[in-house]
Amino acid sequence: MPSYSAPLRDMSFVLFDLLDVERELAALPRHAGLDRATIEAVLAEAARFASEVIQPLNLIGDREGCTWHGDGVVTAPPGFREAYRQFVEAGWPALSCSEEFGGQGLPLVVNNRCYEMWNSANQAWLMYAGLSHSAYECLVAFGTDEQKATYLPKIVSGEWTGTMCLTEAHCGTDLGLLKTKAEPRGDGSYAITGSKIFISAGEHDLADNILHMVLARLPDAPAGTKGISLFLVPKFLPDADGRPGVRNTLQAGSIEHKMGIHGNATCVMNFDGATGWPVGEPHKGLAAMFVMMNSARLGVGMQSLGQAEVAYQNAAAYAKDRLQGRAAAGAQRPEKPADPIIVHPDVRRMLLTARAYVEGGRALAAWVALLIDREHGHPDPAVRAESAELVAFLTPIVKAFLTDNGWETTTLCQQVLGGHGYIGEWGMDQFVRDARINMIYEGTNGIQALDLLGRKVLADRGAKFAVFARHVETFLQENAAREDLREFTGPLATLLADTVALTRELGARVPQDANELGAAAVPYLRICGHLAFAWLWARMAAIAIDRQDDAFHAAKLATARFHFAWLLPETAQRFAEARAGAAVLMALPEDAF
Amino acid sequence: MPSYSAPLRDMSFVLFDLLDVERELAALPRHAGLDRATIEAVLAEAARFASEVIQPLNLIGDREGCTWHGDGVVTAPPGFREAYRQFVEAGWPALSCSEEFGGQGLPLVVNNRCYEMWNSANQAWLMYAGLSHSAYECLVAFGTDEQKATYLPKIVSGEWTGTMCLTEAHCGTDLGLLKTKAEPRGDGSYAITGSKIFISAGEHDLADNILHMVLARLPDAPAGTKGISLFLVPKFLPDADGRPGVRNTLQAGSIEHKMGIHGNATCVMNFDGATGWPVGEPHKGLAAMFVMMNSARLGVGMQSLGQAEVAYQNAAAYAKDRLQGRAAAGAQRPEKPADPIIVHPDVRRMLLTARAYVEGGRALAAWVALLIDREHGHPDPAVRAESAELVAFLTPIVKAFLTDNGWETTTLCQQVLGGHGYIGEWGMDQFVRDARINMIYEGTNGIQALDLLGRKVLADRGAKFAVFARHVETFLQENAAREDLREFTGPLATLLADTVALTRELGARVPQDANELGAAAVPYLRICGHLAFAWLWARMAAIAIDRQDDAFHAAKLATARFHFAWLLPETAQRFAEARAGAAVLMALPEDAF
Repeated sequence: MPSYSAPLRDMSFVLFDLLDVERELAALPRHAGLDRATIEAVLAEAARFASEVIQPLNLIGDREGCTWHGDGVVTAPPGFREAYRQFVEAGWPALSCSEEFGGQGLPLVVNNRCYEMWNSANQAWLMYAGLSHSAYECLVAFGTDEQKATYLPKIVSGEWTGTMCLTEAHCGTDLGLLKTKAEPRGDGSYAITGSKIFISAGEHDLADNILHMVLARLPDAPAGTKGISLFLVPKFLPDADGRPGVRNTLQAGSIEHKMGIHGNATCVMNFDGATGWPVGEPHKGLAAMFVMMNSARLGVGMQSLGQAEVAYQNAAAYAKDRLQGRAAAGAQRPEKPADPIIVHPDVRRMLLTARAYVEGGRALAAWVALLIDREHGHPDPAVRAESAELVAFLTPIVKAFLTDNGWETTTLCQQVLGGHGYIGEWGMDQFVRDARINMIYEGTNGIQALDLLGRKVLADRGAKFAVFARHVETFLQENAAREDLREFTGPLATLLADTVALTRELGARVPQDANELGAAAVPYLRICGHLAFAWLWARMAAIAIDRQDDAFHAAKLATARFHFAWLLPETAQRFAEARAGAAVLMALPEDAF
Repeated sequence: MPSYSAPLRDMSFVLFDLLDVERELAALPRHAGLDRATIEAVLAEAARFASEVIQPLNLIGDREGCTWHGDGVVTAPPGFREAYRQFVEAGWPALSCSEEFGGQGLPLVVNNRCYEMWNSANQAWLMYAGLSHSAYECLVAFGTDEQKATYLPKIVSGEWTGTMCLTEAHCGTDLGLLKTKAEPRGDGSYAITGSKIFISAGEHDLADNILHMVLARLPDAPAGTKGISLFLVPKFLPDADGRPGVRNTLQAGSIEHKMGIHGNATCVMNFDGATGWPVGEPHKGLAAMFVMMNSARLGVGMQSLGQAEVAYQNAAAYAKDRLQGRAAAGAQRPEKPADPIIVHPDVRRMLLTARAYVEGGRALAAWVALLIDREHGHPDPAVRAESAELVAFLTPIVKAFLTDNGWETTTLCQQVLGGHGYIGEWGMDQFVRDARINMIYEGTNGIQALDLLGRKVLADRGAKFAVFARHVETFLQENAAREDLREFTGPLATLLADTVALTRELGARVPQDANELGAAAVPYLRICGHLAFAWLWARMAAIAIDRQDDAFHAAKLATARFHFAWLLPETAQRFAEARAGAAVLMALPEDAF
């Protein structure tokens, strides 16, 4: 049976040593009073919930899955409902919600660490709550006062959960094709008719009501993405007291059998003239949905970060325990029949890859969460604007780079266990299977790459990229004299210069041939991800190098060195790919495939 | 539902245009009469069996799995038994077996292509037959005349199947730790007692009898790998007429719940004083087992090649069919609501990666099979010796490089389908899950890398590597004047020179620090795999470039160009890793993990 122990020591390092979160939050009026002790107490309690309540349900959820009872009735795996009850009672859904709607108003940088832990413990379970948070953000931004008053307290308390209903059988990436209709009834409500697929947490027995955020077309809607509106469509219509009243005419049609996240009900949702209310302006549903989507994309990054961490922990434990063969340099445990496999360099390579990607990912994710807190809460408009630029640039990187890394690392951690990694009882294959969806949903990683290079970088002539690059340059300048950091600052400076050059090249090439964007986007995203990680690892090394007497910091420095020696060189391949040009991809005629 | 159509056109290209198999076989007395028409007829019939008989059972096998009926009784998924009956009736098990034992005596280079097809169609099903072939080779090499007479005809006909019983709960890679005992009974038979795990096809209802090839220790056995002997332990002891007689005291204890290959029964096998007979000399069981193992390792390469091919076919079909979004350069199918996703460069990148790795893998696997045919059947001892050297060098590459590539490509093909790739009904996730085991069993890919760099390259001071390198050099010399091939020969020559230099460096470094072997082995194997693929792709391009009018050859050339532009650059990363040194991997103390 796999286990999980929250990496609280490393979280504190990231929050307080690397990001100086206490000082940063002091600059944000709504979080100014929040001190380190309070944050650490919250994280410790979230860690307990992860390890004691939801982690023990993870393997059960995978094995038993959700149950389809017919007639639209779905139940979550055994224990999920009770764990959700405890989650609600403890007030966790309210953690980062606004105090205005009954929330606790904690910053996202704290909430984000909780989500990492809960994802390590049980991604499928957490999705029931995670999607609610996306619905919360969308209603806060676009809901009417009445909608906010009716729905937000229920979402914040966790009594009701939410969904995002975008995909239809014939359209996922290209939402412009969607067919679900919304017909006005004249009383402010609309009749929603259509069928949605792949709806996570679409139906279940954890909450009294489910709020579906549904994309649909008004009768006069223009074709394509400019004719999509967003509707709030509750499973039960709230009665005069705000309690679940009349059952709405919508129903789950079936649940999917999937590669992983078996504990979460992925539903076909059929809307049959269901009552819904518009959220935001007509025909601008996609923009409203993107508020949820951007939040969800960062959340997906947390999912893979969580999977990678728990896979690492279990692989490392196995590698220290499993006796097999002898160290190349001679027996390390002569008193035992064999040495633990962690003596072998290649086992260490697999574990260190996981470690470096996890710790780098944690640093990046926490920084982006802090930037969002600044974007929403800093008194200086210039700081807010700069933070927003960075968040826009980094969101596709967090989504795609962390989930690609999560796939690689969970696979490597599974490999550490050999045959035992392939069978169910050790739980390693579940981490791989659960992590797989993260590269697909909320926009495939290929779509993230197009978003990064097309919208975020080239569309504003590299302005957002330049904001990010200035952070790297500043670090390099501040540490220019430090010989002891040269092993990190040297390669970082080279990578920055090469990335700047590549960005310019692509800025010149893409306008000549639109296919160059799609050809270069995926390697470009990997390069930007590596640039961010190399910068963060260099900063972490700079902190650790002065505190090497301490085992934690010595390990941090050793992991930084591994990162630069083994993972950063991937960029050589990616630069070659990014420069290979579209022609080589487009040469083969369609019917030759 | 996924489908499969055997790539017979490409197989003919590899066999007859690239490898000139007809002329090669003419030099081998036992295959001299075999012509192209006969080979193509065999392959066409094997293709029919793949597509019509076993492919339709693949998804069912995954969903239903094997059934444990208690008391050691296991049945394969619905349809598996009937398909196996057809396989036996058609004489397929005998295909490459010696005519001396009732086989058809076809060369391995033909058999190998059949196995690729059957693996594409149903890896889990084929494993029942595939392990029998390993048992066949072991008995041919080490069995007594009586054992051969009793067992080989049954194995060759397929009436009986075989297993390899190596792993125990506490030992897999390190077989020196195994505990299963073999006690002499004085009549030439031995009482075998112990428990084996992860035994593929250990128990099932496809055949009348199962021959377990079991590693065990004699009472006087020295410790470690030098005290292991091999025993033949049938499920039913053959009676005087050679039919299954008395039930032996061995039994399946349970079946594993695995990530994939659900259709194959992976058993715990308990031997309780079971009757067995020695195969080969006492204490030399590991050497005998390695005859099976080397054959099995090439077979595992075929498994991933097969998975990658079928995943590619289904992803390509989806990409041509799925309408979503518009081409970057403007609508390609203005009459339709959207363009097929194959218009997008990144979708093509994923498909071309699969295509290049599949076609390169097919070329390499077929060449190695031909080398084995030469090793066993060429009249010139020098040719036999050279072929044996190449086979020894290439076996770990076929096993590890093809299975790592298979993992990457099945994952990419799954990605092409987006969310539809994650749900069961499209079958894409099964290809990924089935392909995953291939990186683990028959020696993990890390073990393959140690075998390559340690035993095959450094232990003989690069002699085997030099034999391989001469083939590459010869090609480069023969084509030195061809400007039209410069785009291929240039990078190939560079890679060869770099690999020679790296091999020398490692030859100097490893004796200084034994950990350098384990540190460099995995990237070294990837480099050697790329060298082999680059050489084969350059040769294929050389053939195709003169026949570009033809769509098949134009596609081959375009895929070769993709391979050099997008896949070969991985070597830049691998050289950096191979030179990074062991110290960076060994720096972290064990308890810091």
